[in-house]
Amino acid sequence: MTLTAPTATIGLDTAAELAAQLRVDSIRSSTSAGSGHPTSSMSAADLFAVLATRHLRYDWDDPRSSANDHLILSKGHASPLLYSLFRAVGVISDDELMQGYRRLGQRLQGHPTPALPWVDVATGSLGQGLPDGVGVALAGKYLDKQPYRVWVLCGDSEMAEGSIWEALDKASYYQLANLVTMVDVNRLGQRGPTDLGWDVDAYARRAEAFGARVLVVDGHDLTAIDNAMTTAAEPSGDRPTVILAKTVKGRGFSEVEDSNDWHGKPFPPDMAERAVRELGGERNLKVRGPQPEPSAVDGSSPTSDPAARPVTTQPTEPPTPARYDLGQKVPTRKAYGDALVVLGAQNPRVVALDGEVSNSTYAFEFARAHPGRYFEMFIAEQQMVAAATGLAVRGYHPFASTFAAFLTRAYDFIRMGAVSGVDLSLVGSHAGVEIGPDGPSQMGLEDLAMMRAVDGSTVLYPSDATSTVALTQIMAVLPGISYLRTTRGKYPVLYPEGESFPIGGSKTLRSSDQDQVTLIGAGVTLHACLAAADTLADEGIRARVIDCYSIKPIDDEAIAAAATTGRIVVAEDHRAEGGLGSAVKDSLVTAGRPTPSLTHLAVRGMPGSGSSKEQLAWAGIDADHIVSAARDLMRG
Amino acid sequence: MTLTAPTATIGLDTAAELAAQLRVDSIRSSTSAGSGHPTSSMSAADLFAVLATRHLRYDWDDPRSSANDHLILSKGHASPLLYSLFRAVGVISDDELMQGYRRLGQRLQGHPTPALPWVDVATGSLGQGLPDGVGVALAGKYLDKQPYRVWVLCGDSEMAEGSIWEALDKASYYQLANLVTMVDVNRLGQRGPTDLGWDVDAYARRAEAFGARVLVVDGHDLTAIDNAMTTAAEPSGDRPTVILAKTVKGRGFSEVEDSNDWHGKPFPPDMAERAVRELGGERNLKVRGPQPEPSAVDGSSPTSDPAARPVTTQPTEPPTPARYDLGQKVPTRKAYGDALVVLGAQNPRVVALDGEVSNSTYAFEFARAHPGRYFEMFIAEQQMVAAATGLAVRGYHPFASTFAAFLTRAYDFIRMGAVSGVDLSLVGSHAGVEIGPDGPSQMGLEDLAMMRAVDGSTVLYPSDATSTVALTQIMAVLPGISYLRTTRGKYPVLYPEGESFPIGGSKTLRSSDQDQVTLIGAGVTLHACLAAADTLADEGIRARVIDCYSIKPIDDEAIAAAATTGRIVVAEDHRAEGGLGSAVKDSLVTAGRPTPSLTHLAVRGMPGSGSSKEQLAWAGIDADHIVSAARDLMRG
Repeated sequence: MTLTAPTATIGLDTAAELAAQLRVDSIRSSTSAGSGHPTSSMSAADLFAVLATRHLRYDWDDPRSSANDHLILSKGHASPLLYSLFRAVGVISDDELMQGYRRLGQRLQGHPTPALPWVDVATGSLGQGLPDGVGVALAGKYLDKQPYRVWVLCGDSEMAEGSIWEALDKASYYQLANLVTMVDVNRLGQRGPTDLGWDVDAYARRAEAFGARVLVVDGHDLTAIDNAMTTAAEPSGDRPTVILAKTVKGRGFSEVEDSNDWHGKPFPPDMAERAVRELGGERNLKVRGPQPEPSAVDGSSPTSDPAARPVTTQPTEPPTPARYDLGQKVPTRKAYGDALVVLGAQNPRVVALDGEVSNSTYAFEFARAHPGRYFEMFIAEQQMVAAATGLAVRGYHPFASTFAAFLTRAYDFIRMGAVSGVDLSLVGSHAGVEIGPDGPSQMGLEDLAMMRAVDGSTVLYPSDATSTVALTQIMAVLPGISYLRTTRGKYPVLYPEGESFPIGGSKTLRSSDQDQVTLIGAGVTLHACLAAADTLADEGIRARVIDCYSIKPIDDEAIAAAATTGRIVVAEDHRAEGGLGSAVKDSLVTAGRPTPSLTHLAVRGMPGSGSSKEQLAWAGIDADHIVSAARDLMRG
Repeated sequence: MTLTAPTATIGLDTAAELAAQLRVDSIRSSTSAGSGHPTSSMSAADLFAVLATRHLRYDWDDPRSSANDHLILSKGHASPLLYSLFRAVGVISDDELMQGYRRLGQRLQGHPTPALPWVDVATGSLGQGLPDGVGVALAGKYLDKQPYRVWVLCGDSEMAEGSIWEALDKASYYQLANLVTMVDVNRLGQRGPTDLGWDVDAYARRAEAFGARVLVVDGHDLTAIDNAMTTAAEPSGDRPTVILAKTVKGRGFSEVEDSNDWHGKPFPPDMAERAVRELGGERNLKVRGPQPEPSAVDGSSPTSDPAARPVTTQPTEPPTPARYDLGQKVPTRKAYGDALVVLGAQNPRVVALDGEVSNSTYAFEFARAHPGRYFEMFIAEQQMVAAATGLAVRGYHPFASTFAAFLTRAYDFIRMGAVSGVDLSLVGSHAGVEIGPDGPSQMGLEDLAMMRAVDGSTVLYPSDATSTVALTQIMAVLPGISYLRTTRGKYPVLYPEGESFPIGGSKTLRSSDQDQVTLIGAGVTLHACLAAADTLADEGIRARVIDCYSIKPIDDEAIAAAATTGRIVVAEDHRAEGGLGSAVKDSLVTAGRPTPSLTHLAVRGMPGSGSSKEQLAWAGIDADHIVSAARDLMRG
């Protein structure tokens, strides 16, 4: 990988001019908006100017080109700097910069999002841009097999986030020489000095210990920056590169340089005027750096359609779709693994990640069948979701799995994935008290609430192998964040092969015209509902049973119909707040029809250890408790 | 700090015997339970044996003694090892170990919890025990000012969690020489080799770069371990110590040593028999190590009652309780800061932490008034909540604050805090779209759903300064995890000083006998509800207005009364799932009374930038939308 010819065409004098313009425009845009972070932009302006003019290989007219380098602003609050660059390369107008920034309905948001075609991922929750960049770099090296580089600008404050170190750990483990992290060490956070201040040596020791090649520069010395970026593009023994740039916050405007009083504050107009004057006035430089090299693509031409590019890794052997006999006992987590193997064979853009529990989630089946498309993330759930986000940016459809409980570790990343608008699937195994003796630390009991609250999410909770396979298949083409909850234990197959499970649907497994009560379950409690219905039938009570496998969206029609039975028992292996019962109640109330008597069985209090059967009984969500609840409603 | 006399009384030969017994008992207990992690226990048995006999200063008969060292099993799945140690020191019986482990209703759970008096914090979600230990060590050094040490046993797999590096970063920043991290580098995780395998040098470089003194040992060489632990107790220039112990998983039983096939699996009885035989048979050694030194406590005697010990740091100046005039515009986040200052003066056990945004959350007011009880956690939300948990273990009441959005980063830690049963308060500022131009990355929109699903939590969302102050006061004595949601902007004070705000209550601000509709809000939407009621009144529509400041528990009585108005509009600055509307609907349906027509206004879709007013209008949760919704219900 060497620098391309166009790199040399723009001199550092032009870069210096650009840096001044970026500073001026960062000030102008934030003052115009009345909010924003000019000083955090100014410290990194020299880095951006040298990068954009001489190193970033990017076709600004074709942001979708798969040959482009990637630029991720991990310190998302420095959005004025990024948008000022967009103006300088001519993709947004000065009018948009001055009148669109931070305004309602405009794409130049306070923190960057992919509403802008030149932005890969939403940033603004610190410590996420670099982990996301690891995902893009994984795609570049292992899947796209393209020579593009991923350039990430981090702030120094965000180096305190553990996720940064998860990212560097994975970057060195996966030998991501295509990843360049630039750290803007301006020593000042929002409220004061950072943990390490200007101790760039301390950062250097840490980054080196995590396997990076480290280059330390004066972040305002354009020649030094240029040399570092040139080195960053040279072979590094497959190490990722970290450029530590010692900088001054507010650099270029003497009134605010290295001041602790100007974080996240636009300059008042008079001050902005003085600043622009000190920086040499407004400029209208239009400048673009090197283009990506079409010839650099392995044998084939780059294309703007990522879906059209081949993935060279093929399954080691053609997978045989698993068949399940009715009544056969199969864990849904196993069915997920089976389904993922087949999906991987059908769809070369399906990839999988797991947090070191693939033998529990059954993601290992995919890893075995499609090793080139499986990424082990070890015990780093934040990085797992971020890598999935980065892979999704490149047009892959990731399935990321761990215990449902441990997805809570990545909630901020899941939330930000929704802001990024990526399509990715999460799978949480070992849901609920059903897991048995391992105890509450391993029980996913909050996952449904957490996932339902994610904007645009789909939340699925199948009860048998057939529905798990069908839903896994659908997830690969669902927009946004989708979530599949799987169960540890073995339960009987309820549905024949080929049965369809539309999103937003449900299955009514028992019903008659004389139903006196409806039992609603999902996952493990559905089996309890079926057993309860049998017991109730023996007592002459007719119970409808609904498998609510689609928790978001929920089957409003089936719930409304259930309401006409006058009595509903909902049982779920989850906290009482925000899960299946909450979804059912939302549906009932929203419908505005007379609501039935309803008993909501859920996990209340803190479980301990015990067998699966004991735990379900303890929580009051087994067949016996459902029967009792139904009987009580009949009496009520 | 030097080792106490009793240390020398137990020889390494006894430690070797103890190590064998710990291995045998780890095998016996897990085989007896039919589940558990014997091999993960066996790799660390030598570390535990040397620690417990010669270095851990602990009065097993008085686990509440404030002079005791602390022992935290960060690799919580090695619970057989811990429980076997409890048997060896004579605090649990062999019967309990053999018949209680992992059984229903028993305290020897699959992963340790404080149901056992010798356990500080629940572990089992990896990468949390060390961050929790940082909190205990902070208490020891800065608040208790006691010479106790905090010993944490980590697994090597969990070193992949970023939270471990957040912990070491803070441990070195706060110069926690009283913290000793032992890493059991057995090279094998659940599903295979770890990221770094047996590369202890790589771990050493990382830990050193993060500011620790590192000691590398053969984890099965008792003399080497003993020397390292002796060194760990010596002055370290205020650096925390990390002992990296190269170990063999399953050590002591040749059939499973260093095998990848035996993670998390008990041995079948015949195999267990062979293992016990190879280890020299069952033992009944009873052994205890050094006692804590009463004389070591600064001038005073140690006491079993942490609340009785003085906190020496006093406020720099006596705080003046803030007064707010009715109608005065005050941000609730500011009122929180004001209240916390007063609370800190009243209660010396109140401490505060913040994630580098204290000038936004107003925690800086506490930091200024009570600097000795404020801990800056920089941008490391996981560590912030873990440190709060560790401080709570020592009897302090922590208030930990950041943007509501960024508490999602710590959800796994919050969930585990509930399993630990600690009392701590979380405060999330900048809730909802109300924040305005910064955009969705900074908006807390999922926090209510997340916090409601935490077992035993209390969720509060005040709308004015008076109620914020009252609720902050109450939080300091609430059990479990409590959460206060604050708002960025200024809104009028609604309540006079001295008004009381009981948990589970609400305030009805407008009502009459002829109410035709009830408007329910909290926080910013309460003000919109009030404005809407005025508009509706002008149109001749009588609207009741309820301030639902207590979202969990919610005021079921007030909601039931509201239902009798026949129509309810709920407006919340949060996602439609799991928040205020969900709590209201849960209450309505659970009551089993006829439900009213209800319109739920919430944030649907992805916001961008814009002013606060524009955002509230965009989301459809401002006064105009509430008026429209009420009108529509009147027509319906």
